[in-house]
Formats: sequence, C-alpha cells, structure tokens
Amino acid sequence: MSSFDFAGRHIGPTPGDQAVMLARLGYPELDALIDAAVPSGIRAPEELRLPEPVSETEAAAELAALAARNVVAVPMIGLGYHPAITPAVIRRNVLESPAWYTAYTPYQPEISQGRLEALLNFQTMVGDLTGLPTANASLLDEATAVAEAVMVMRRAGRSRSARLLLDSDSLPQTIEVVRTRAASAGIEVELVDLDAGLPEGDFFGLVAAYPGCSGEVRDLRPSIDAAHRRGALATVSADPLALTLLVPPGEMGADVAVGSTQRFGVPLFYGGPHAAYIAVADGLERHLPGRLVGVSVDSAGNPAYRLALQTREQHIRRDRATSNICTAQVLLAVVASMYAVYHGPEGLTAIAERVHGHTARLAGRLRRAGLEVRNRHHFDTLVVRVPGRADEVHAAAAARGLRLREIGPDEVGVSVSEITTPAHLDLVAEAFGAGSGPAVAGDGIPAGLRRTSAFLRHPVFRDHHSETAMLRYLRRLSDRDFALDRGMIPLGSCTMKLNATAEMEPISLPGFAELHPFAPAADATGYAELIDRLESWLAEVTGYARVSFQPNAGSQGELAGLLAIRAHHRAQGQPGRDVCLIPASAHGTNAASAVLAGLRVVVVATAEDGTVDLADLEAKCRQYGDVLAAAMVTYPSTHGVYEQGITRLCDLVHAYGGQVYIDGANLNALLGVARPGSFGGDVSHLNLHKTFCIPHGGGGPGVGPVAVAAHLAPYLPSHGQHPDPARRAGIGPVSAAPYGSAGILPIPWAYIRMMGGEGLTAATKAAVLSANYVARELSADFPVLYAGNGGLVAHECVLDLRGLTARTGVTVEDVAKRLVDHGFHAPTMSFPVPGTLMVEPTESENLRELDRFIRAMKAIRAEIDEVAAGAYTAAESPLRRAPHTAATLADDHWDRPYPRSRGGFPAGVTPDKYWPPVGRVDQAYGDRNLVCSCPPPAAFHDPSEGEAA
Amino acid sequence: MSSFDFAGRHIGPTPGDQAVMLARLGYPELDALIDAAVPSGIRAPEELRLPEPVSETEAAAELAALAARNVVAVPMIGLGYHPAITPAVIRRNVLESPAWYTAYTPYQPEISQGRLEALLNFQTMVGDLTGLPTANASLLDEATAVAEAVMVMRRAGRSRSARLLLDSDSLPQTIEVVRTRAASAGIEVELVDLDAGLPEGDFFGLVAAYPGCSGEVRDLRPSIDAAHRRGALATVSADPLALTLLVPPGEMGADVAVGSTQRFGVPLFYGGPHAAYIAVADGLERHLPGRLVGVSVDSAGNPAYRLALQTREQHIRRDRATSNICTAQVLLAVVASMYAVYHGPEGLTAIAERVHGHTARLAGRLRRAGLEVRNRHHFDTLVVRVPGRADEVHAAAAARGLRLREIGPDEVGVSVSEITTPAHLDLVAEAFGAGSGPAVAGDGIPAGLRRTSAFLRHPVFRDHHSETAMLRYLRRLSDRDFALDRGMIPLGSCTMKLNATAEMEPISLPGFAELHPFAPAADATGYAELIDRLESWLAEVTGYARVSFQPNAGSQGELAGLLAIRAHHRAQGQPGRDVCLIPASAHGTNAASAVLAGLRVVVVATAEDGTVDLADLEAKCRQYGDVLAAAMVTYPSTHGVYEQGITRLCDLVHAYGGQVYIDGANLNALLGVARPGSFGGDVSHLNLHKTFCIPHGGGGPGVGPVAVAAHLAPYLPSHGQHPDPARRAGIGPVSAAPYGSAGILPIPWAYIRMMGGEGLTAATKAAVLSANYVARELSADFPVLYAGNGGLVAHECVLDLRGLTARTGVTVEDVAKRLVDHGFHAPTMSFPVPGTLMVEPTESENLRELDRFIRAMKAIRAEIDEVAAGAYTAAESPLRRAPHTAATLADDHWDRPYPRSRGGFPAGVTPDKYWPPVGRVDQAYGDRNLVCSCPPPAAFHDPSEGEAA
Repeated sequence: MSSFDFAGRHIGPTPGDQAVMLARLGYPELDALIDAAVPSGIRAPEELRLPEPVSETEAAAELAALAARNVVAVPMIGLGYHPAITPAVIRRNVLESPAWYTAYTPYQPEISQGRLEALLNFQTMVGDLTGLPTANASLLDEATAVAEAVMVMRRAGRSRSARLLLDSDSLPQTIEVVRTRAASAGIEVELVDLDAGLPEGDFFGLVAAYPGCSGEVRDLRPSIDAAHRRGALATVSADPLALTLLVPPGEMGADVAVGSTQRFGVPLFYGGPHAAYIAVADGLERHLPGRLVGVSVDSAGNPAYRLALQTREQHIRRDRATSNICTAQVLLAVVASMYAVYHGPEGLTAIAERVHGHTARLAGRLRRAGLEVRNRHHFDTLVVRVPGRADEVHAAAAARGLRLREIGPDEVGVSVSEITTPAHLDLVAEAFGAGSGPAVAGDGIPAGLRRTSAFLRHPVFRDHHSETAMLRYLRRLSDRDFALDRGMIPLGSCTMKLNATAEMEPISLPGFAELHPFAPAADATGYAELIDRLESWLAEVTGYARVSFQPNAGSQGELAGLLAIRAHHRAQGQPGRDVCLIPASAHGTNAASAVLAGLRVVVVATAEDGTVDLADLEAKCRQYGDVLAAAMVTYPSTHGVYEQGITRLCDLVHAYGGQVYIDGANLNALLGVARPGSFGGDVSHLNLHKTFCIPHGGGGPGVGPVAVAAHLAPYLPSHGQHPDPARRAGIGPVSAAPYGSAGILPIPWAYIRMMGGEGLTAATKAAVLSANYVARELSADFPVLYAGNGGLVAHECVLDLRGLTARTGVTVEDVAKRLVDHGFHAPTMSFPVPGTLMVEPTESENLRELDRFIRAMKAIRAEIDEVAAGAYTAAESPLRRAPHTAATLADDHWDRPYPRSRGGFPAGVTPDKYWPPVGRVDQAYGDRNLVCSCPPPAAFHDPSEGEAA
Repeated sequence: MSSFDFAGRHIGPTPGDQAVMLARLGYPELDALIDAAVPSGIRAPEELRLPEPVSETEAAAELAALAARNVVAVPMIGLGYHPAITPAVIRRNVLESPAWYTAYTPYQPEISQGRLEALLNFQTMVGDLTGLPTANASLLDEATAVAEAVMVMRRAGRSRSARLLLDSDSLPQTIEVVRTRAASAGIEVELVDLDAGLPEGDFFGLVAAYPGCSGEVRDLRPSIDAAHRRGALATVSADPLALTLLVPPGEMGADVAVGSTQRFGVPLFYGGPHAAYIAVADGLERHLPGRLVGVSVDSAGNPAYRLALQTREQHIRRDRATSNICTAQVLLAVVASMYAVYHGPEGLTAIAERVHGHTARLAGRLRRAGLEVRNRHHFDTLVVRVPGRADEVHAAAAARGLRLREIGPDEVGVSVSEITTPAHLDLVAEAFGAGSGPAVAGDGIPAGLRRTSAFLRHPVFRDHHSETAMLRYLRRLSDRDFALDRGMIPLGSCTMKLNATAEMEPISLPGFAELHPFAPAADATGYAELIDRLESWLAEVTGYARVSFQPNAGSQGELAGLLAIRAHHRAQGQPGRDVCLIPASAHGTNAASAVLAGLRVVVVATAEDGTVDLADLEAKCRQYGDVLAAAMVTYPSTHGVYEQGITRLCDLVHAYGGQVYIDGANLNALLGVARPGSFGGDVSHLNLHKTFCIPHGGGGPGVGPVAVAAHLAPYLPSHGQHPDPARRAGIGPVSAAPYGSAGILPIPWAYIRMMGGEGLTAATKAAVLSANYVARELSADFPVLYAGNGGLVAHECVLDLRGLTARTGVTVEDVAKRLVDHGFHAPTMSFPVPGTLMVEPTESENLRELDRFIRAMKAIRAEIDEVAAGAYTAAESPLRRAPHTAATLADDHWDRPYPRSRGGFPAGVTPDKYWPPVGRVDQAYGDRNLVCSCPPPAAFHDPSEGEAA
C-alpha cells in the first residue's frame, strides 16, 4: 500500500507520523499496540477477504458502469415517489457541498446556526403547508412517519383502545410498515374504506391518505370529525405539493399530518434518502418524535436557533420510549426547504397547477377514448381500468420510455410529476391506445377542497428567487456552521471521518439518483449488483451471514435486528422470551428500540472499571432464564474500551438461551481486527454513516443495515414490493423502500472498493493509535476515565472532568464551547458518563490536527487552573463566556477580566479563524418559550438593510 | 417569460423591483428608459432571431446529448496535451466551487489572499521545477507562452538581430503561433535541427523543446551555451512532469522556460482552458508578461500577498507594449498548483517514473517485435516507423479505443500519460502488431540528464496529502476571498454577473472534459455542432457574419481582429495602412494589441463630455489618410455611455478607408438593443467571460472570440490541425488549440439557450436600468462624471471622487477598501479616469443588494464628510484604516478616533460579516522587495501550531 493509494489519502497520519505517535506511546510498531489493546480471544485469525483495492479513478469507472446498467426511464409510478427537479444551484451548493454534507447533528447550536435556520425553514414550510402549528425537523420516510404518528396518537389521545383505523387507500408500504410496528406494540390495525364511513367500535386513531394511493382526493372532514366524536385522534398523510391546492389537514381538523417532502427537489435515489415530515396540532408538540428546532436567545440576547426539548439520543426516553428515532434526514430536509425557498409559494403553486392540469387533461383524453378512469377526483394520480390489458399497456409504455404503476391485470396507475411534459402525456395516451390531441380537462379537486389560505408568507420564501440570491443564501448559512471541511469533529461514538469526494460523486449520477424504488427489477440490475457485492463485503468484514440494507437509520437497524431475534424465538417455540438485557451505559436508542420491538428492558450494572458487570449479567440471565430474549451491547464498549469480558458475556447469554446483539456503533475499532459475528454476536446493525463514510449530512441521512448470523437470516425485513420475489414475504418492512436509502450505498461501496482489506485494517489501527495518542497526551490534564488491556483505549477515550468541575465550577459544556474559540467542534458531552467528554479522533485526522487539538485542550486546562487560582471566577472566565463572537470582540464596552485577544484568539491571531455567529445559547429559555417556525424578520433586524427594508 | 423561467432566475430585479426603480428614475416603463438612453440610429429594428429558450433541465439534457456524441477514447496523441487525473477533492472544491470560479482577478489583494496564495504556490512550483527563480502566475497556453518568451528575449537581450532560432522539434502549433506573432513583430523565424548544431549568423534568441515533439530528450546545454556565446538568450519549452526526472532548464543555463501545466490535473477540455507557465532567470523578472504574485506586508506589518509590479490591464504598456496579455488562467493554475500540493514531490516523481517506465517498456516491446523506434531517448513519447502502414496502425488502435498521433504514412506517435495502464500498453503493442508480454526496458533518459536537485521542498507541498487536509486547505483559502457567492462585485467594464450552475455543470461531463484537441474530427461531432450553433447565435446577436472561437482571451481576440484588418488591407493592395486610431480613454490592451499586430497607435482626444472628440478623429483620419488602418473604440464607451457619435465615427473611418474595430467589452449593454456589426463595426471581439457568463475564475480563464463582417471572414485565425480542413491554411493561429478554450464553450451555449432572444434583451435592459438606478441614487453624494442622452448612463457609471479627494484627502482607494468592511468588492478604481470609481451592477443583482450598496456608499460619504468636518484626519479615518480585520478589532490596544464597532461593523453588527484576512496591503513595499515564491512558514508563524511545528 503506497501512501498515494486511496488508503493513504483516507488515513491522516503518515507512516512517519505514526512512528512518532507510537514512540510517545512506547510501542515499537503498530501491530504491537493493537496486540496489546485487543483481547486475543476475539482477534480475527486471517486477513479480510475482499477484492484488491482499486484507485479512485477505477472505482469511479466501475460505479459509472453500474449506474449505466440501471435504466433511467420516466417514472410515472407514483406510490409516494415522484421524479423532481433539483435546482442546480441547490444540488451543487447543498447536496454536493462538503460544508453541508460533512456537518454533524446540530447539538452544538452555536456552530450550527446555518443548518438550524434551514431546518426552521423546513418546519415553517411543513407547518404552513399542513396548516398545523408545529412541525419537526424531518423523519426518515413517509411510512415510518405514519408509524410515528400512530404512536403519537396512542400516547397523546384519551382512548384506551388499541385499535387503529388505517385508510385502505394508503400507500402499500405504509400499510406494511404500520403493521410491522403495530405487531410489536400491541396495536390492532384495521383497514377502512373511508368512502364507506368508519366502522363501529372503539379506536384510538385514524390515519387517512390525502390524496389516496389511488390518486383519489377525498374530503376528510367527515371522517376526522367522526374520529374526534369517538374520542380518537386523526392523522392525515398528505402530499405537500398537493397541499398548495388543497385545504390543508390542519384546516380539516387533523391532529397530525405526515408525509414525504421527496418531490420538493430531492432525487428519487431508488427509494431514499428523503425527508419525511410530521406536524401536530397545538398541545401535541411535546409528543413529537425526532428533532425539533426552536428559537432561543444567546448570551448577548440575540435570537439563536437550537434543538428544542433536548431531543438527543442520549436523552431519548429509553425504556419508556414510544419512538426510537434519534436522527433526522437533515441534508434532504435542507434540500426540500431550499426548494420551497427558491420557488416560493407562487412557484410551488404553479408547479402543482401544472401537475394537476396535466393530470386532468390526461383523464379527459383517456375518458374520451372510452377508458374508465376510476378516480372521481384527483391531484396527480389516476387509476385506469383496462380489463385484462394491463400487461399490454405496461409494455407499450415501457417501449416509450415510461414506467407506470403495476396494480394487477385489469388496472394501471399513472402519476404526473414536475418533470412531466405534454409529450409524455401523448406517450401515455398512446400506451393506453387512446388517440392524441387535446381533451376537455375537468377540475380534479372536489368542490370545497380548494385551498384558500395563504402559506409561506415569511420573507425567506420570497427573497431568494434569483439564483444569485439563492447562491449567497446557501453560502451564508453554510458559513455559519462548522463542519469537517473546517476542522476536526472529535465526537466520541460518532466517527466523524473523511467523506471522500470519490465516494460522494457517484451518488449524483443519473443512473443512481433518478431511479424509482418500484421500478421494474430489470431496470435496476446495476443497483442489484452493487447491493449484492456490498452485502457480501459487509458480511465478510463483520463475520455475519446476511445483511439487509432496508433500515435507513441505525435505530431502524436496531429495531430490525431485535425483531429478527423475536421472530427467531417465536419460531423456536419460545414466544415468551421478551427480556432484553442492556448495560447501564448503553445508547438510549438501544432501550427505545427494544421497547418498540416489544421487549422488556432490564438494565445490567456497570462495574467499577466501567465494564459490563459480568456478575450482574449472570445474575440477570439466571433471574430471567426462560424469558431472556437478548443482551444488547456495544463493542468496543460505549466507554471506548475493548472489554476483555465480551466472550464470556456472549457465552453466558447464549447459555441461557438468549441472543447477542452487538451494536455496531463502534465498528470503526474492529474492521480487520475482530468480527462481531465471529466472536459471539448473532446480530449487529452497522452505521454506514460512521464506519463506512456516509456523511452525517448535518444530522442525517443515517443508514443502519442489519447484519445477522445464518439462523436469523429468515427474519430479516421483507418488503411487499421487493425486487427479489423471495424477499417479499416475511416479518415485514421497517422502512418504506425495499433497500432503504439505496441512493447513498455507492458511498460505502466506493470506500470498501478503494480501501480493500488491507486499507480497512490499516484505518482501524490508525484510529486506535490516534485515540491512544490523544489519551496519553491529555491524561496529565484530563484523567482518562476507562481503559482496557495495557491501559489502552480503543478508538476513543473518555476524559473525566468531574474533579475539575467540583473544584472550579467549570463544566464540560464550558470546555466544549471554549473549543469553538480554538476552531474545534466539541467532543461528545456527558455521554456515556455525565461530566465527561468523549473524544474520537478517527483515522482521518493527521498528526498536525491531533496536536492542534491537544494544544487547545491544554490551553483550556490552563484557563481552568486560572479559575482554580482565583484569577477570575468560573462565571467570569473565558470558558463560561465562550464562544466569543466577532461582535463581542468589536463591542465598544469590554468588561471582562481577560483581554479581548485572549477571548477571541486563544490560540493566537490567525486570519483563518472560524467565528461562531452567536454566543452561548440559552437552552432553558428556548424550552420555556417554544418557537418552532421562522420568527419575523424584525427579530433579526439586519441594520445594513436600513429602514426601507 | 415567467419569473420562474431561467431568465427570471438570472435577472435579479423582479418586475416589481423594476417598477420601483423606474419610478425613481421617472420613466413609466423599461422600454421608455432604453429608448431615451440608446441612440435611435443604432437601435436594432427587429428582435433577436434565436431559438425559443428552454429550461435548465432541457438545456442540461441537450448538452448531455451533445457531450455523448463526442467519443471519449484513450488519447495517446501527445502534442502537448495529456489526459490527467484531476483529484476528485480538487475537482469538486475548486473547479466546481463558486467560491473559486466566481472570483475576480486579485487586484484587491486584501480580499484575494486565498487565490493569491494558490498562485504563489503555482509560481513556486514552476520555479522549482524549471530551476529558474521567478515564474509568473500563468499564461494562456504553451504556444502563446513561447511567443511571449520570444518577446522577452527580444526585449531583454543585447542582440540587435531580428532572427529567432526555433527548434524544429517544437510542437507544430507552437511553430505556427510563433510564426503568426513574429510576422507582425518583424521577427524572422528559422527552424533549426538542434542535433545539427546552431546555424551561422546573428540571432537574438533560441527556443528549444524539452522533450521535443518527437519525444526525443536532448541535452540542451551545448545549444544554450552556444546561444549565450553568440549574444543570444535561450528559452526552453519544457514538460513540467518530465522536469521531475530531468535536469531542469535553469540548471542547463536557460534564460526562460515555458510550457503547459495541463497535465497537472487539468482536464483536456478539447484544447483549453489550461494554464501555461513562464519562468525567467535573475534579471529578467521585470520583463515577465502577464501577472506576477508577490509578497508584501499589510498595515499591521504581517505578510500579505498581492500582484507585483502593477501588471494590470490599465497599466499595460500600451503603445510601448511587447505583450498584450492582461489575464491569466487562474482557475486552471490553481488546479495545477493544487495537484502539486496534493501529490508533493514524491508523488509527482512517482507519476513521472511510472509514465517513463511504461514508455520504456513499450519501446522495448516494439523494438523486440522488430519495429524501428526513432527515439534515441524519451520521457513519455515515441515515434515509431511503420513504412506505409500508419493508417493500418491507427485503425487498429482506434478499434481498441486508443488514439495515436498522426504523423504521416510511415510514422506513428505514441504518448504515455498518467492514465496509461499496462492494459493500454498491451493494446498499443497489438495495434502495432507487436506481441504481448514483457520486454527489457532501457532508461529513456540520457546520461547526465537525470535530475539530482530537489524541488517542492516548501511545506505546502508536504502538509496536505491526506484528503481531509487537502479539503480544509482548499476551504481555508477560498474563505479568505470575496467572490460573487458572497456579494456584489460592481466592477465597471468587468460585468461580474451570475455564472449559473446550470451553465457550469456541463463542463464536467466527460464528453466535454476528456477530449483531446487533436482527436479525429469524427470523435468531436458533438463539439462541432455546439460550436457551430454558438457561432450562429453570436453572429445573430452581434450582427457579424462569422465568429472564431480560437482566441482564448479578450486580448487574443483583439489581436486576431487586428490581424484580420491588416490582412484585408494587404489583400486590397494597401499594405501601407498601419495606423490605428485609439481614443485616450481606451483599455490599455487595445493599444498593446495594435502594437503586436504591427500597427502604429495614434491617440484620439477625448471631448469635454467624455466622448470621443469627433473633430480630432476627423483630423487624424485626414492626417493619416492612406495609411489609416483602423479605429478601435469601445461601445458603449469605456465611460459607460451610449455615445451619440458612434455612427458618425464609423462613417468617418470608413470614408477614409479604415476599418472599425468595436471592442466588445461592453456588449452587455447592447444585446437585443443594438448590433455592432450592423451599426458600423467591421470586427469585434466578445468577452465570453463577461457578457456570456463564463466565470472569471479568479483571474482567468477568459475567452475572447473574434467576430467579423463577411469581408474579413477569410482572415480569421487558421490552425494547421483544425478539424475543418478548410480552416487549416490562412493567417495562422493566435492560440495553441483550434478552438481555443473549447471546454468552457458549453457555458455561453447554455446561457443563450436558456435565455433566448427575449431573455437576453431583458437582461440588457435590466443591466441598464440598474446602472441608472445606482447612478441616480448616488449622484447627490458622488457626481456621475459622464452621461449620454437624457442624462442617462448605459450599463455602468463613473463616480467622480476628485473633488472630495481634493477637499479631504480621502482617495478612491480608501473608498474601495472601506467597501470591504461593508461586504462589497470595490468598483473599478481610477479607470478610465484617475480619481474615479466605475460601478457596473449588472442585471443579476437584485434590488436588495443594489440598495445595500447604495447605503454603504452613502455611509462612506458620511465618513468623508466627517473628515471634511475635522472629526478626524483622512489618515486617522476609518476610510484610510480600512479594511478592518477581526484581529484589529480584537487588539487589546485600540488607539483610533472612532469606535471599534464602527470600524468593523460600519453597516451594523451581523453574524454574516466577511472578514478580510489582512489589512491594507502596502503595494510599494512589495515592489521594492520582490518576493515571488512561497515565503518560509516562519513568516506566517501560526501561533496555534506551537513551538513544535
């Protein structure tokens, strides 16, 4: 492996740097360090059997060839997915911009104001379109959004019923996902024909589709009113483009609205990633799953955005959870919101009118030709009766480059989209055997359902319609944020490593970006091969038998894995096994996923040294015996340590009939060194957005495939519309599309292809070396809380500040914010142990950056010592007053007990300083005063705009 | 035209904004304003006959189809162009990043430190590789670089001879361009076979190729020594990749080295744009043409980069010129320099060794098969004898996807590049009928010519080899700069308008980016159609008969146009016509181009009102009568006015037998309103990088096609390797490639395709409206120096500060720098009139941005008034101390007579402030202390690096 291979570009420390680092650690070579750190019992004996790595150019050519094998037709399939035009300025400056896609979730609001504003625009857009006051910052897809809405209704409603009424005209994948999720939650799902009125009997919630899967547009007010009268809540799953023309759910009395914003400029991506939405009526906002952006104030009293209600994964409701969602689809939500910013209300309405008009004209033509169009009303979709002729129509359409919706032998579905032209309509008519030429177009929208209320009246949806203005808005927002393109993001557990351009470029290829998830299998052979090879590679590196890519977030991978475990026990005749052991230090998501899978969570204690208390584990195993379903552990542990006891833990759980779930969050410390599927795991989910280089996107997309041993393979997620017929029946889907977020799978494919087994192994070892180097260099200033063999950590280290905090009052938050002044994103704060910082440098940071971080932390320690020495109080210190904005330093009144230059340039003056746009954000204020849509412009009065603006 | 068409995205002011602006100007509608401003005598009677505009999506599809028609084979043609691998991180974050490509030439150094550093890296790279101390910041292409070197030798040498010895093994296009240029300059070119020694007789310069076109690598020391002994200077045109292995020109005693850096990661682009280089020995640096970046200090004494020696177009040597070069190829020079930064000396050497090794192995195989390889030595290129079989070999190669160099019936050329693989070599051997398998590889490098000296030892070529480090370096540099993605760049005469993403994306398509300029015509039918249509469109909008795209900068277009005029007069039997009338206010380039075309420049006076003094013009016409060749004027004038007298001027010049050259710099005020070819022009060059949306790239590429009336069409540039045989013979080429910078012609193509005639006309009118709006709003504060009909300006306005300067000492430079504090690029300073600012808002700026600029200028006027009122002196004022860096504001010692907040936030506090990385740059210091390569890191000691760094 030459240093000019891709691996040499991906890994930051050069061989020379590594020698320096090893010398500081006292190891003669890297393998000696790894041998010391990793328990010999779990070491993989042989090298990874992966193809020889190829160069960036070769990988690009291979991916281009795969993309070219996919057939990009004109999809008129609908089913919740529509081709859309991504404005080029948004594609280049958001989807293809590292400033946006390499950012992390905006937990540190001071350095995330740009994407927080974009997400607030998203929330405002959703709120306006749905007519409901509070929307969140996106969900994973429409089907899971409906499932989340069901949980909101169940939790928030007054009804004790476990019965859900689900519109039979819902999207098929929505029905499937709701059924999968309901099965674990003890919810009874009943499909109802809304045209026939609601059935008798109690129910806690109603979900109605608007328009329906058939394209039918129904007046939902009677159904919603009926639900309310009967003590139930009502959710409407709605197409946001249709809502520019239709009376919105909120005005119809709906309590919840959900849907997908994909058609707002997000590529089809063969199913994802896309941003779904959820919005709720007043009084339900504190039941919202996922993330919610709100407005608060900063230390100078200026408005500042932040995530509201502390909806972080470490604060997820654990065993009282009703949702395990801990990420959003931020990058895609940003695209969708910018699409609305770029088009504005008039532009969106014009697009919707064009779509609706095309559909109406098509209906007229088909009817004139004597065909039965089943819709009474429509927005963009029609179902046409062609008794016995459906195959013929599909063939004729395919020959013309179109793809229509397959329903059965007698019916064909057609959906019109933003890209549909009159020429496409001619081709559709031809395919149906209808003549050409115009026809009378009726109005597809029922009387009384035409929207009259205004929307998107905030100036942000008016001021950026020229491309120049849009470009500058995107740049301005991204400039407010700190992402990997500026400096290290040493977030323990999050693995913020390089997202190489060669990995990212292929996702823009039309052959990957423009494929409909329900395109015929013959159109997607490039994807099929890509997915097949990626599955085999991931199986090889993890030691498992099979991998499903359906879960489109780590949390969904956990759920899928736990559902497989439950199904396995059931198949073994042991349906009573429903206890899941989870260590106290686990991610909150683990417990939440277990609850959603219908498991009871039992916490296992942590030993003095931070490891899982094996005695307690054994006691719990014994205690639950026959009802033990699984133990769920992270390896290396969430403390960043290769625990020696992992093999014993696996043996114990197995001995008591349980399955071992190894959370793959820390897989970056294992590749090429140990295989979870070989050292005792039965199932793991992999965070492709961590170890496998899918960018975090500012808070999503995440991708969480689930990998299982052979005995669990039959219980991997199925999907009724899976291109492989063998995978259509089974435990059901956990996400809307057969392969989840297929569109970004070229990223891990490229990463593995370019790294090869040797490169992946070298990356793991470099990550472990860097973590130990940082731990060693900082240990005199900040005690490293836990270590394993040889006093070594794995790929991250927990720095214990509790002693310093007790002595000085300086908190981890103060340190995190002061790091911003040094030009760093904070490490993970107070997870897994309150009062600590968890640092994960990853293999991609070079020695210069590691040393810069170490110097910054030592400078911070010196400031803490000054507090201790009484130079100033903690409250007056540059730590508490951090981060420092440029405005603070230019303030004509400086009353702080340290010089301005120290405040703003603690590492010395540099022209390349990152300036946070706001000072310390007041979290409590924002929660007390919940504002989750765009504030009026006056709140941010820009003095340069003058009085006239 | 809907506001959501592309034109509505390109044009900033909405119809509503335009109504507001017209009301302020007192015109009921836009056409009334245009009717008042534009002389009726030049108005075009009918609308532009262009195809109906298409959407961004449709244009993208059309361009993708054209690109797909070009055949991307594996070019092994050589001839100075080699396929290269653009590292993806550089492609995405430089070539495809608006922060780089929308920047202007770095005349304002305080807001250009990023690209100035990149260019200094380029100069350092060139200097190191060539072994010569001073390199410039790039030239247009290798052939014109040789021509520039010839002029340097002629000017700087002691010889009085007019004879140039040119290596007969030079590239054919180099020989042709030198001959074209020499013909006008009275230089006699003699081709010499260096193997035979230098011929007898005086000569002023020698140009040797290294390696030669044939691939031969010669020891040039004997030839250079001989030239020096005979009082001549010596230039070496050298391949920079070869120089990693070969003794560099400087060590061989060369005075000048030139060449192309294309193969350093720049796409082939069917001929351009690429960055050529020139480097000179000590003592010649003040003879360097083009731009030279140097190091100076800023107001705080910190190092700061800037353009050295004031090599701006307005300071070009006019009628004493020996070069008319006024732009560089900055964007491509940045790419090439970053390629070196990314690979470092070891990486470049490894690439060169691989290329050389492949070539040596190929030579061995061919020889083993009994073929005669003509080279005694080689780096990457071989000439193989195949008597009578050349067509057969080419056909066999083509069938295998390769393209070899066509030489004649008996010889075939092969060049190896970075992309060549062993599999390619097998195919080449097959094409020649040589067997497969390995062969003994000799060393292609002559004894004594192996390079032993080190190069690229500066840390910048070592510190950014990981992609993460590279990404951050690119971001850091681009963040230092102010480009169109941050705010308005109201540069009069430069037309800094939107470079739309939909125009930019297609240039990355492999079908456009990866084509060799000398690919067979059958491979380039997509390009042929694109160029053909673009020519017809430009002819339509300008009123000319034919257009040549060969000139790859405006200056080269001028030269081509003037050469056509000279050729025409010669063909008319009037070779004595050699006087070119040029108004006093003209661009310096005009005069320089005239001199290079062999014309005598006679200046025409300016009348009181700023117009061309027609009485003086008539007098000069009369005076020069029979020797009048041309008059060269800009329209609208360089004063930004539609001069009423243009028709009379054209009539006068024609009456005296002269030709009228209308400089197209201000064409943005004419499209759809008037056609220079219709109102009297015989020839114009067009700045595609102004009116037609090619981005300025931070100081290049420029593209300057020349458009001519029918009688001049026979004299457009020819090119010996033109794909159209009809254009191979003629007056010769003015640039290296048949179509100049063909690779960026998709940009103007897309612009015209998406705007249509109506859109182009609307853009012109909006540009005129905006200029008049700004002029009107600012006129009370800054007198508008010149106006035309109705007191109206055209598309720009000259603000006269001379009175204020006289009263207060505040200069235009002070205003320009203070505008940086307001977040604006300065207008054009002191051109065309010293002591003024010329403002061109363009049609792309919306009313909010125009108003923001007006407020900034009024705030500056208020500060000037404070100086006048004695609040502080000019020297103490925030104007003179501008721009304000963040470091200045954070300085613990503030001793200025105005508050910090006013200094740094003159328009009020905003989190989105652009902070210049340096304060006011001391221009004189830099020229006194010329440093034109990277200073040692200690000069920029970054305190955050600590002592160990």
